[in-house]
Amino acid sequence: MNTINRVLIVGGTHGNELIGIYLIRKFEMKHHLIAKSSFETVTLLANPRAYEIGKRYVDSDLNRCFRREDLANSSLLSYEAQRAKEIYQTFGSNCRHPTDFVLDLHTTTASVGLTVILASKHPLNLQLASHLTKINPLVKVLYSPIKEKDNCYLDNISECGCTIEVGPVAQNVLDAALFQATEVLVAAILDYLETYNKGNYSQFEETLTFYQLVDKIDYPRNEQREIQAMIHPQLQGRDYEPLNLDDPLFITFDGQVILYPGISTVYPVFINEAAYYEKGVALCLTERRQVKLKTA
Amino acid sequence: MNTINRVLIVGGTHGNELIGIYLIRKFEMKHHLIAKSSFETVTLLANPRAYEIGKRYVDSDLNRCFRREDLANSSLLSYEAQRAKEIYQTFGSNCRHPTDFVLDLHTTTASVGLTVILASKHPLNLQLASHLTKINPLVKVLYSPIKEKDNCYLDNISECGCTIEVGPVAQNVLDAALFQATEVLVAAILDYLETYNKGNYSQFEETLTFYQLVDKIDYPRNEQREIQAMIHPQLQGRDYEPLNLDDPLFITFDGQVILYPGISTVYPVFINEAAYYEKGVALCLTERRQVKLKTA
Repeated sequence: MNTINRVLIVGGTHGNELIGIYLIRKFEMKHHLIAKSSFETVTLLANPRAYEIGKRYVDSDLNRCFRREDLANSSLLSYEAQRAKEIYQTFGSNCRHPTDFVLDLHTTTASVGLTVILASKHPLNLQLASHLTKINPLVKVLYSPIKEKDNCYLDNISECGCTIEVGPVAQNVLDAALFQATEVLVAAILDYLETYNKGNYSQFEETLTFYQLVDKIDYPRNEQREIQAMIHPQLQGRDYEPLNLDDPLFITFDGQVILYPGISTVYPVFINEAAYYEKGVALCLTERRQVKLKTA
Repeated sequence: MNTINRVLIVGGTHGNELIGIYLIRKFEMKHHLIAKSSFETVTLLANPRAYEIGKRYVDSDLNRCFRREDLANSSLLSYEAQRAKEIYQTFGSNCRHPTDFVLDLHTTTASVGLTVILASKHPLNLQLASHLTKINPLVKVLYSPIKEKDNCYLDNISECGCTIEVGPVAQNVLDAALFQATEVLVAAILDYLETYNKGNYSQFEETLTFYQLVDKIDYPRNEQREIQAMIHPQLQGRDYEPLNLDDPLFITFDGQVILYPGISTVYPVFINEAAYYEKGVALCLTERRQVKLKTA
């Protein structure tokens, strides 16, 4: 990609994650905040009906509805399946006015701080992530290797893009510090894309540290799928901190401690995210990796 | 009241507050944990349908359905209005097997730590609260003066009782440390009631420090009732800390700070509770007070 012509900023992909929703509202009222000279910036409140009912989704998780196969499947009729098709047909890479970069704003109940999840390892995404960690060392970069045909996330509708996750913040709560931090990240991303378009981006080879998703762990459950243990207090809130063999992982309702059985050091993320109980995910495990960057 | 004959422990009055729900499940499987020789202990999952859908309530907030007038109003037919009537008819002070003490287990997204909300200033409630703060100085005692006819809370169905609020914890999340702390509080309350029945309670005059609800403040809103500002980062998470004239209260989406206009020192609680956005409450204000106790 030589030029970014159109950037899409999305909020409210999940209806109970308020920061993105209120940021989109702000940007729609004050468009100059996201206007750039070299590309068009558009905004989207992705799941307005879920926001109205104060829930993550109406029928199904919108941020799991973007598999290419599902987008082409006319028998999928849930509200979110249809909404995904509308979004893809309006902004996707194959529509008449494609969006070149999509930025999807989320929150989590987990203590991930400021996390940028790369939609792909496209050189522009990597360069952008490197830039963001440089201007704010607290920014963490997450990457989940997914086969193209299995990619169900909204940020996959364009060639480049990322998802921002900030936390901890409860569902249906506005946290001012995280609202402001998200806004600063959005501004930094738009600034970088403007610089990219003007050819002034960094020309040096650099190294980016990122966290690659390698596994997921569910809560211990009984045969009725009922949860039998909670995240251990020593692990709660420790996203991105090293987890080693025999570190406390879960604690049962009777106080029995379940230790981490893995041999190599991992870095958990999305620890105790409210929305992942139903997905069978108590925490995600990542490995810390480095990649050498070349200019995008 | 001379003797406590029956104690009711309630969880899941709000369907997305998991700690109480999982504690009730535990107590139902291991009844010996709550069994005492001098009284019967019964448990109740108050709003099972709200729990099934992962929401605070189905039709209306169950913990606002216990006004005596509403309980006698046959035209109120919401799920929660009917559920409140069932609960009152089964456990209320006027039923055939009345409950003498009710303990209602809640969580909040606000940083209230371990809070005991007294259902009334009944001498037994005050003595119990004093006892709990003595064995754990982190316990805070909250009291909201309400006219009997306006009292809409579940813990009002018995002559004595209290509500436990622990936080911060996001809705639909199990926090192990707060789960365990709640269980310890429940055990201490049952122990105290056993001691009370056996006549071994404290005979000394003592002083109890508590926080009395004096006001509520809503988020700044526009004419469409849309929120125009967030809790200020300096106030977020500072439940029970003093708030004085000109301390930061809110911050608008554009970064303008709104200061607290009150003259006397207050102690905010339930700051930024997720479920209170729709109730028009950004925070509750309390005053710190003391009361001299006489034995119950």
